[in-house]
Parts: sequence; C-alpha cells; structure tokens
Amino acid sequence: MGDLNFPGQLHARIVRSPVAHGAIVEVDTQAAQALPGVVAVWAGDDLQHLPPIPFRATAIKGLTPYCQPAVARGMVRYVGEPVAVVIAEDPYIAEDAADLVMIDIDEHEPYLDAACEPASFAPSLSCEPTVIEKGYGDVDEAFSTAFAVVELELKTGRHSAVPMETRGLLARYDTARDVLELHGAAKRPHWNRDQLADLFKLSPASIELYENSVGGGFGVRGELYPEDLILCHAALVLKRPVKWIEDRREHLMATNHSREQTHRIHAAVDQKGRIAALDETLFHDQGAYVRTHGARVADMTIGLLLGPYRVPAYRAKAHYRLTNKTPAATYRAPGRFEGTFVRERLVEAIAVRLSLDPMEVRRVNLIASSEMPYERNLSALETDVVLDSGDYAGLIEKSLAFSGWDELRREAERRRAQGESVGVGFGLFVEKSGLGPSELVEMRVEADGSVTVVTGAASLGQGMETAIAQICAETLGVDYRRVRVLHGDTNRIAFGFGAHASRVSVMTGEATRRASEIVRTKALEFAAELLQRHVNQLEIVGGVVQDGKEGPSVTLADLARQLHPASPARGDREPGLSASAWFHNKHMNYPYGAHIAQVRIDQATGHVAVERYAITYDVGRAINPAMIEGQIVGGLAQGLGGALFEEFLYDQSGQPLSVTLADYMMVGATEMPPVDVLILEDAPSPLNPLGIKGAGEGGVTAAGAAIASAVDDALQRPGLVDRLPVTPQYLRRRMQQYDEALGSLSGQGAP
Amino acid sequence: MGDLNFPGQLHARIVRSPVAHGAIVEVDTQAAQALPGVVAVWAGDDLQHLPPIPFRATAIKGLTPYCQPAVARGMVRYVGEPVAVVIAEDPYIAEDAADLVMIDIDEHEPYLDAACEPASFAPSLSCEPTVIEKGYGDVDEAFSTAFAVVELELKTGRHSAVPMETRGLLARYDTARDVLELHGAAKRPHWNRDQLADLFKLSPASIELYENSVGGGFGVRGELYPEDLILCHAALVLKRPVKWIEDRREHLMATNHSREQTHRIHAAVDQKGRIAALDETLFHDQGAYVRTHGARVADMTIGLLLGPYRVPAYRAKAHYRLTNKTPAATYRAPGRFEGTFVRERLVEAIAVRLSLDPMEVRRVNLIASSEMPYERNLSALETDVVLDSGDYAGLIEKSLAFSGWDELRREAERRRAQGESVGVGFGLFVEKSGLGPSELVEMRVEADGSVTVVTGAASLGQGMETAIAQICAETLGVDYRRVRVLHGDTNRIAFGFGAHASRVSVMTGEATRRASEIVRTKALEFAAELLQRHVNQLEIVGGVVQDGKEGPSVTLADLARQLHPASPARGDREPGLSASAWFHNKHMNYPYGAHIAQVRIDQATGHVAVERYAITYDVGRAINPAMIEGQIVGGLAQGLGGALFEEFLYDQSGQPLSVTLADYMMVGATEMPPVDVLILEDAPSPLNPLGIKGAGEGGVTAAGAAIASAVDDALQRPGLVDRLPVTPQYLRRRMQQYDEALGSLSGQGAP
Repeated sequence: MGDLNFPGQLHARIVRSPVAHGAIVEVDTQAAQALPGVVAVWAGDDLQHLPPIPFRATAIKGLTPYCQPAVARGMVRYVGEPVAVVIAEDPYIAEDAADLVMIDIDEHEPYLDAACEPASFAPSLSCEPTVIEKGYGDVDEAFSTAFAVVELELKTGRHSAVPMETRGLLARYDTARDVLELHGAAKRPHWNRDQLADLFKLSPASIELYENSVGGGFGVRGELYPEDLILCHAALVLKRPVKWIEDRREHLMATNHSREQTHRIHAAVDQKGRIAALDETLFHDQGAYVRTHGARVADMTIGLLLGPYRVPAYRAKAHYRLTNKTPAATYRAPGRFEGTFVRERLVEAIAVRLSLDPMEVRRVNLIASSEMPYERNLSALETDVVLDSGDYAGLIEKSLAFSGWDELRREAERRRAQGESVGVGFGLFVEKSGLGPSELVEMRVEADGSVTVVTGAASLGQGMETAIAQICAETLGVDYRRVRVLHGDTNRIAFGFGAHASRVSVMTGEATRRASEIVRTKALEFAAELLQRHVNQLEIVGGVVQDGKEGPSVTLADLARQLHPASPARGDREPGLSASAWFHNKHMNYPYGAHIAQVRIDQATGHVAVERYAITYDVGRAINPAMIEGQIVGGLAQGLGGALFEEFLYDQSGQPLSVTLADYMMVGATEMPPVDVLILEDAPSPLNPLGIKGAGEGGVTAAGAAIASAVDDALQRPGLVDRLPVTPQYLRRRMQQYDEALGSLSGQGAP
Repeated sequence: MGDLNFPGQLHARIVRSPVAHGAIVEVDTQAAQALPGVVAVWAGDDLQHLPPIPFRATAIKGLTPYCQPAVARGMVRYVGEPVAVVIAEDPYIAEDAADLVMIDIDEHEPYLDAACEPASFAPSLSCEPTVIEKGYGDVDEAFSTAFAVVELELKTGRHSAVPMETRGLLARYDTARDVLELHGAAKRPHWNRDQLADLFKLSPASIELYENSVGGGFGVRGELYPEDLILCHAALVLKRPVKWIEDRREHLMATNHSREQTHRIHAAVDQKGRIAALDETLFHDQGAYVRTHGARVADMTIGLLLGPYRVPAYRAKAHYRLTNKTPAATYRAPGRFEGTFVRERLVEAIAVRLSLDPMEVRRVNLIASSEMPYERNLSALETDVVLDSGDYAGLIEKSLAFSGWDELRREAERRRAQGESVGVGFGLFVEKSGLGPSELVEMRVEADGSVTVVTGAASLGQGMETAIAQICAETLGVDYRRVRVLHGDTNRIAFGFGAHASRVSVMTGEATRRASEIVRTKALEFAAELLQRHVNQLEIVGGVVQDGKEGPSVTLADLARQLHPASPARGDREPGLSASAWFHNKHMNYPYGAHIAQVRIDQATGHVAVERYAITYDVGRAINPAMIEGQIVGGLAQGLGGALFEEFLYDQSGQPLSVTLADYMMVGATEMPPVDVLILEDAPSPLNPLGIKGAGEGGVTAAGAAIASAVDDALQRPGLVDRLPVTPQYLRRRMQQYDEALGSLSGQGAP
C-alpha cells in the first residue's frame, strides 16, 4: 500500500481514545484545524449520518446494538477507538494535527473480565449478555448415570494475526466517472463493495474495490473497519484521494483481536474413558464492539468443539461478553484453536482421571471412517456440521509413526532422567474448509493460447493463483505457467465470495475445474470438426489439440482466434473459447490432522523451548503440496505464538500493554523449531470431484493443545496447563499453585 | 488526459523529422542524453525490434510494405515523422532535450501529387501504385450507346478532424501484476489491446486499455499510432509511468489526415438524365504510410459512391498513392463526404449538360422505396452493400418543404437581382451505419435496483451512454437515470468492437435491447412465482414488477437481492438478475438525408458566408432526437470546414504550411449558420428490431456537395466549383479560369 499513490492525495490520521471507557465531554478540533496543511478534522458528530458497520455473517440476535460506529459518539469503549479524524496534505502534518485534537472524556470504570458474573456487567455498554446455545441428546441423563465426571476451567489468551504489513487504504472518488475506488481491499471485496454501497447510498456499480498485494491476512485483514468508512467518506466529501496506513501501534490496538475465551467444560465418561456427554459453558470476550463477523467465533467454537470424537449428548452455551478492549473477531482457525485446546485438554484430563493412556481415550472416542458422512446435529457458520470423510484412527497411527512418537517418548524420558524437563505432546484436530455458498469463475483462452481465469476470490498471499492455475492447467491440458488468474478487482466479475474460511481451493478450485471442462469440450468439439476426427480420438496436450503425436493438430490459440466474434471461421458458433461456471455448495468439508510437539523447559525461568514439531494433515487432495507445507509451517509459527508467547494484556484501567512488538512477542526464527510435515490424501472430500479440502488453518489449530500436552509431560504434572499462552510468568505461577494444590490434596489424586 | 497522472511518471517527447523525404545519415542523441533529467533517448535503431503498426481493417494486397514503423529507420517520409524519442522527468526537460537531438538527413525530392503519373512515383517509397477495382454491368456498352457523356475532374482537399483535445497517452507497467496499462484509448480499445499484445508478445490478459473522457474522436482518435507503441515500449522498459500529450503543432502534422482525393468520373446518360453507367477513377493521397485503417477510405469512397441512385453499370478504380505527407485515414463520413461531393457535382453537371432541373435528374435516378432492400453488387468495409430501406423521393420532397426551398430560391433570385451573390444549393446523400460484425452487452440489476450495462463500445463524447441507457430503460421498464453504462475498460468485458462507423446505437443498442429482454423475462417469471400471478398479468413500471397499480408488486431491487448467489430465496435459480447478449450483424444499414445551404459570396474577396442551413436526416428510429440534432449540427461545423476553410497545405519541399490554428482555419461561431434539422423515421432499418440507423456522420456528408451547389448558384456559374475547400483564393482563381474558358468556348455551352 505504501507504493500506491495518486496525485493530489491527502493523508488521514485517526485520533484514538486514550481511555478505555468513558463519556465524551468534548472533542476540540480547533487547534488541529488551524495547523497549515490540515484539510479537515472531523469528530463523531461530523460523521453521525454514517450508519455503524454492519454484520456480514452470523447475525446473533441481540448483538446489533453493539456494532461499531466509524467514529465514537457519546461514549468511548476501548483504548484506540476512533474519536476524530484528521485529513492533511501529508502524513506528518496529519500526525502533528492529531496531537492537537483535545479530547475531554469523563472516565468510567472499565469492564475487562468477560467471565465475570453478568450482574457486574457494564451498564454504559447496555450489555444484556447474549447467549447462544447448541446441543443435542439427553445431557442431564448422561451426567446422572456417568461413571465419572471430569471438569475443567480453561482459558485461551487474547492474541491475533499481526501480519507483516499493517492495514492500509487508499480511497479515491473519480468525479468524471462517478466512481468511488477503494484500494487495499482483500478477503471479501465484493461483499465490502455491496456494504459500502448500502452505507453510502450508492449503486454497487459506482464503487470499485481493488486488492493490493499482501503477504497475509489471516482473518483480520480485509474486513470493513471504521477506517474503511472514514476513508470512503473523506474521498467522497473532499473529492481527492485519501490514504491511510496503519502504524504498528495502531495495528495492535485497532485491528481485530481474537481468541480470548474462558471455558467451563464437564465430561460424563464411562470407565473406559468413553464420553457420554459434554456440557460446555463459554465466555467469549468480544471486546468493545461486534464487528462484521466477530460473532462467528463463539458460534464456531461451540459448533465445532467436538472435533473427531463421538459425543452422544452435548450442551453448549456461549456467552458473548462485551469488554472495554479492542473488538475481537476471527483469526486463522477461529474457534478451532480454542476448541481444540479445550477438547484435547479434556481428553488428557479424562485419561488422568481414569488412569488411561490419553491416546487410548482418543481412540475409543473416535468416529470411525465407516460412519462417514457423520451428522453432528450441530451447526456452524450457518451450515449443518456433517463430517464428510475421514479416517481419524488411521491418522493417529500415521502421525505416531511419522513423528517417531515412541522414540520421542523414550528420549524425553531418558533426558528427564538426566535432569532435563523434556516432554512430548499430542493434539488431534478436525478443521473445516470450503465454505460456500457459491463461487463463479470466468475463463477464456486468449489469442496467444494463454488462459485467463477470473475469480472473485481474493489473494492474501496464500498462493491461490498457483493452485487455481494448476487445476485449470491439468483439466484443460495446458502448461500451468500459461494460466493467468485474475482477482482482486470487483469490476472483473459480477460476484465473488473472497478468501476466508479456507474456501478458495475448494470453491474457486471446483468452479475452475468446471469451467475448464467446458472450455475443453468446446475446444475438442471444434477441433474435431476442423481436423475431421471424432472427439474421442483427440486429446489436449500442452495447449495443442491432437490426434496422437503424429496425427493432425490445432492449437488452442488457433481455436480461440477462429472463435473470435469477428472471425469468419466462427460461423454460427458461440463467440470465444471461453466459459463461466458456478460451484454452489451447502456444506463445508472437514480436513483433519495431528500436532506433535517436543519441548524442553527451563524450570528456573519458566521458558518453554520447542525442540521439534511434526504435523500430519489430511487435506483430501493436495493440489500443491509445497504450498500446503508452507501454509502449515507458517500457521504453526502463529499457533506457537498463541500457545507460548503472544498476548494482548491490559492494565486495570483498560490501558493496553502490548502496543509494540517488544511487548507483543511474536515467534521469530529463534523460537521456531524444525517442523516435519506429512500431507495425507486418505480421505478425499466427496463434496467436490477433486476431493479437495482447504489447507490454510491446520498448522495453527492444535498448536495450543499439543504444547499444553508437551508441557504437562515435560514437567510430569498432568493437567498442569489450564490456559494459553504458556508464558514463563504463567508457568512458574501455575507450577507453584499446582504443587500447592497437590500437596494439600496429597493422597486424593491429581488436582 | 492532462488530469491523469501517476506518481513517478516520466514524460515523452517525440523528435520529428524536419524534412519530408530523405535518407537518415545520423541521429545523434548524445547531447540530449547528457541533459540532466533525461532518462532515455531512443532513435529508430533502438526500437527496431518493434514491428510496424499493423492494419486493423481492409488489408489491401500490396499495401503491407507501407505500414508505419514506430520510429523511422533509414528513411524519413514526411515532416513530423518520429525520428527519436526523449523520455525525461518532466515535459519541459523532454522538450529541451528533443531540441538537442541532432538529425542529419540526406534530403530527397518529395512526392506530393497523388494524381501524377505512376512513372514519376517515388522510388525510395518503393511504391508500386496499388489499385483496387469495383464494379458491375457492361460499362463500355453503356458508354458506347449513351445519349451523352458527362465527365468531371474533381478534388477534395486534405483536412481532418482536429478535435478540441489533442491525443494523449499514459502508459504504465505494473510489475506487481505484470500488466501494461495504456490510458487514453478510445474508439477500439479491445482491438488495440489485442494488437499491442501481438506487437509486444504479451498475452491480451496482461494489457489493459482505458478510455479517458474525450469530447470527440471523429475517426482520428484512438487508432494505434507510433506514439502508442513508443509509450508502451517506454513503460515496459523503464518500468515507470510515461505520459505524452500531443501539442497542437504536433497534432496537425502527426494525427491522421484525410479526404485528399482526385476523381475523374464519367457518366453515360440518356436524354432524360438517367444514368446508364459511371466510370470512376480515384487517386487517393494516402500520405507517407498506410496506418491501421487508412486503406478503408478509398475502398469506401468507390464502394459507396453511388448513393441513392440506380446506376445500371459501374466501374471504379481507386489508386492508392503514397506521398510525402502525413499519413491519411478515416475522418467522419470517410469516403462519403468525398463521394457525395463527386456524385452530386456530377448530377448537377448532367442537368447543366441536358438543360434539366438538377432535382429532376436526381428524381429520375433515385432507387424507389419499393426496390428495397436494394443490392448494389458492391462491397464496402468487407460487407456487401445492400441498401436496407429508404424513401429517397419522399425525403427530397420533405427536405424541400422543410427548408422552404422554393422560397429560398426566389429570395436568392431577388437578392441576386439586387446585386448580391446569393445562392442555394442541395446535396443528397446516403450514409452507412451499424457496422458489425458483433457486439456484446452484459447487464445486471444491482441490489439497489439500478441497472448496469457493460459494453465494449467506446464513448467519444457522442452521448452513447444516454442512448444505451434509454434503450435499456424502455425495454426493461426502469427510469433511464437508474441505468449506468460502463465502457472504456478492456477488463470489464471480454469483447468489444468500439465506437466507429456510426455503429454503437445499432450494434450496442440492439445487444442492449436483447439483454434487457432477457432480464425482463427473468424478472417477470421470478416475480410471477413470488406474487402468485401469471407472467402475462405482470408489467414492469419504474423498476417495479406489478399486477396493475393496485395489485401486488415487487421491485427489481428485491428480485436482484433474492437472486444473489448467497440468498436462500434463490433456490436453484441461476444467480443474478442479469444477462449477456450478443448481436451479430453481417450488413450495414443506410440512413440518408439532404443538406440545403444558402450562401452569400463577397465577389471582391471570394469569401463565402453560409447564411442558412437545413439538414434532413432519416435515421430509421431516433432514440434521442436532441442528441442526434447535436451530432448533426456538430458534424455540419466540420463539414463546412472541409467545404470552405480547412486544408492542410504543403510547400514544394513538402513542408506543412498548416501547423497552427491560425493557418489551419476551423469553423468558429462566426462561420456557423443557423441550422434547421429535421429528423425523420420514415424508413426504420429492417436489420434490427428497433429500426435504428446510426446518426453520427450525416451532418458532415453532403456539406461539400451542398456548398458547391450553392456557390454555383450564387455566382450563376453552373459547374464552377470543382474542388474543395472553396477558399477565397481558390474561388477567385477558379472564377477567372471559368470565365476565360466560357469566353473561349462562347457558343459551345458550359465548360
């Protein structure tokens, strides 16, 4: 975004609330407005005609009042909330002027604990706690007849994506064409366009969204944020391009946070560790507002909590709780990172309680591959959860063999005997991918024989251009380097559902395969006429339609030229060697895998070093194994961050403590272990002919679970880890607490 | 184009040949390259890998060697030919540096007369004169048995469009996307994109052409010129945006000229003035090169020369002759302005010869409306000339009545009797429009009920957005102000044939009507289901599908939202309230009209003042009469320029004498008469359901003919005018010559 500029562009700076909770007494913009080079300064009242940012998904009843306005009015609800906007001739003036905006706020007590009792909840947030429930079966009956009940309270820490590039936007209103351009869109350009049209009362045809090249989105990038509305408003009003690039401090307090949850889970089990019922209560820390799709996380957490296990009865309540922190929404593997931590902690706790091998507890609870497709009687993301395919038992065996599990265990034992705190941990997970409802692909063979594929999916650096090109190339019979995949421009294609929920390979992939088949058929039929051969005699190899290597042939380029509308050779044939194809899909599919971690702990400092890591992931069909491995390893870096290092902390007044990368500690090369990746294709998805499942999130999902398991093992304290991240401070405190509890309970078993 | 800028852009300046014809000895760029701020200086050898600019139409055998290279190598062939290119940080440095490029040219004799004998033709142009022939019937027989033979030699002067904005280009290579953008395209963006792809060996998908807003093209704008190749090359090589804006002096020597022709025409007639045969020889001054579609003009001149008249036998030869002048190509009404002048001059000469009323000669030769469609046995623009519909006799009567012809004649006579030189003249013409072969329109109803129409046609300021919106609005049942017509962007639609040959209303218009019908049917059928009505009970009024005013209704906006691919209400229906539609068309159609001029001549100076003007034009179906009137009046201003004022003159060494607007005299408000316009719809085209014929050129077509006729009348010297423009200098010389001839031929009739 830094490289994109338009002549005459202005620069925006957002003035953000310095307090977490309070009533705005006055926003004095006079001094800022007086600074030479300042073009406009707007406070909340100036933008009051703009509606708040709407939901794009999972509209939970009761949450609508908590949508975020572009700029705060009346109240501020988190540190970093936009309170005013400065637009100036250059970014330095804008920043100086922002410092001159005087904000007088009557501070209120902040609300920071989502798991506290509703009674204590923030009256100024007017938050009636909102609850969603899911479940099936007779949970109470199962608990009343259970051999044992295992209960845990577990927490996952507040962290998020923190991509290398912060967010950036450039809005520009082209008066000549009456078109508002917004550059910097990614993830869901068409949806954002439609929403902006709604918000600004414009036709969707008069708004154009353009992606720019980004190295990562991870769920946080590309949603509609206050800044999107502010920039569009500024461009429309000032009729000059307006640019904004988030600085890192802003990013850490303005871009969606994620993951902060408290779980209270009870399992009713029999003596073999078979789960009869689960009863789960979730307190989801939503932060100060519910942004576009923030409501999804709690929904997915309880909708997908059960993973690979057969659970005869289930009851889950998710409490959305607003706090005076940065709003939270999705981040890579949303709900699954958290849920997998909870579920796998629970399985290990069951094993401890019943003195069983945790792997055995897993095995007895697994859904068998013969039971597929397996209906959960649950929904997530507005779809019914139906596990489409999977051999979970087989995956465990392959994972253990691939990682050398037994040898790892023996090595850890040996090293522990030598005084090291070394342990290995395991986490089993089921991901979800290929969210519908639809995707459209338009494809054409150009006059030079290259193939253009246009999609409304987005590229967030995941390499989708390569995977889609491969699918086209293999289906059609051309070199994949001759396939150009165009995306990231709402003008190019009428509909698009973007890149999120690990959907692109599945949805755009299948639409691409279908379009390729149509183009292939057209090419073969036309070539058959030209070459006077039967269609069945012909094949397409390297862009040439041929009757074997020696027979007559014609290139796709030739056919495309002859099908040009102006070509006399076309006759009455439909113009263009081209096709468009939809793929509509009502169900997600479910890749699955396992994480295995080996850690070594410095008991003096509480530091956890990850020594080795192995991930096994069955993605049904791997279009590009090298890219999938890249996704997995990159995902793991983020997963280890959430498991061990990354956490947005607040002090008691609601001031964020993690607003630099010195305080918010990300995984670097030093922290990253060697990773072995095994990609499996044992369970192709029956929901698309290529069998593809998405591969974007499995590197993250079970990292918290596996690390927790390994830390327990390294310290030989089963059930030790009850929250993430396992920071040194936490670990030392928790060990002390654990050992005290063990001492006081001595003789009564594990805590 | 002046308003379009990209950061970091460079500026190009073309160094042009100062001599008309010669061998390049040396182009020394050292001093220019040394100037600070100069980024590159290229001479012909530096761009030798670029192929010459190809034809896009009417590839006449033998002309290929005369395609123009981007920059001259070896020889220069006209003053203004690009010899080198300077690219610099700002346009002033570029211009200064251009002056430092030293060009050493060994001057040759220039060839300036296209009608001279081939033997004298330029050997360095290696021009074997190229001839095309058309015709039918036994011409020799007709002449051998004719009552009389009338022969004329007529010339039309070299002039051209000279739009208010000169040409301008901005090329930009986006390395991130591997896309070459060229801004400033108009007329035929898709074709130009495809040709640039060919020339630069890129996929068409990696080139994007964008129109910018222009007030006029008139045939000269938007073809591929040397500058297009140069700018694209510069952007690709330098990887920075490169801008070029033609200055007026450049424009007058670099942009396509037109119209310069010499005609030798013979008519065999009977005693009633009925034409038995025409024998036409055309010398077409092509200038130094044949650019993209320059070859069309001679082809159209002889293919469409016959206008509304029944001509039993016809033989025409067109000689393409290269001269050392600016290359020539099409300009509004190409070939018809010239041909109408020739044909109508001939009709009047026949009348003089046979002492008949010219109007009577017209009448006896007219094709009757009962003969429509009338096959000419001729081709033009690679289509068979089949006059589709027309009531030429009726048009003459309506024209005479509308203009008050008889009263005009009487008034002229009265004023002549009082010593003024006042006369009235008449010119009858047949235009052509609606050139195929194809056009595609994509249409969708947006979620707000507005309608988007995407076309590959171009807007050159002709108001096509309005006309297309009207056709959509009327067919579909929405307010035309809710229809947005998008064009001028090769990304938006796969194919497009641009705006030229008065084709947009016909081709895009009919494709729009078809798409509107499909959308209308979809809307009615879906609404019928929703409202539980029969389709026949429903109508669409103002964007609302309703069963009468009182019955149930649903808006198109609602239907569009319910047909969104993600809408559950969609069911299994095809997503989108949208359609795409082609219109393929093998034949042009033929609007027709008449010009009537009243002039007053100052015999002392030779100045011709146009006092009144009337144009009658049958366009089959007038979508927007006000816009058509605007087209006609604007066209007339250009027609009067060519008839009276505008001429590119060269001195004997081939130096252009008309390189400022002080020398090249355009029609201003002072010269423009009051114009009465009568738009007729008597002869709808049977070739498209709306009956539309194009209206872009008829304001020009017969201006030369009518002015010549009026000048003859004002001076009471029948057959006086034998060339255009009728400048004062020409008129006084010609009168003297005429009177001398009359004197020497006294008693033998008119010369």
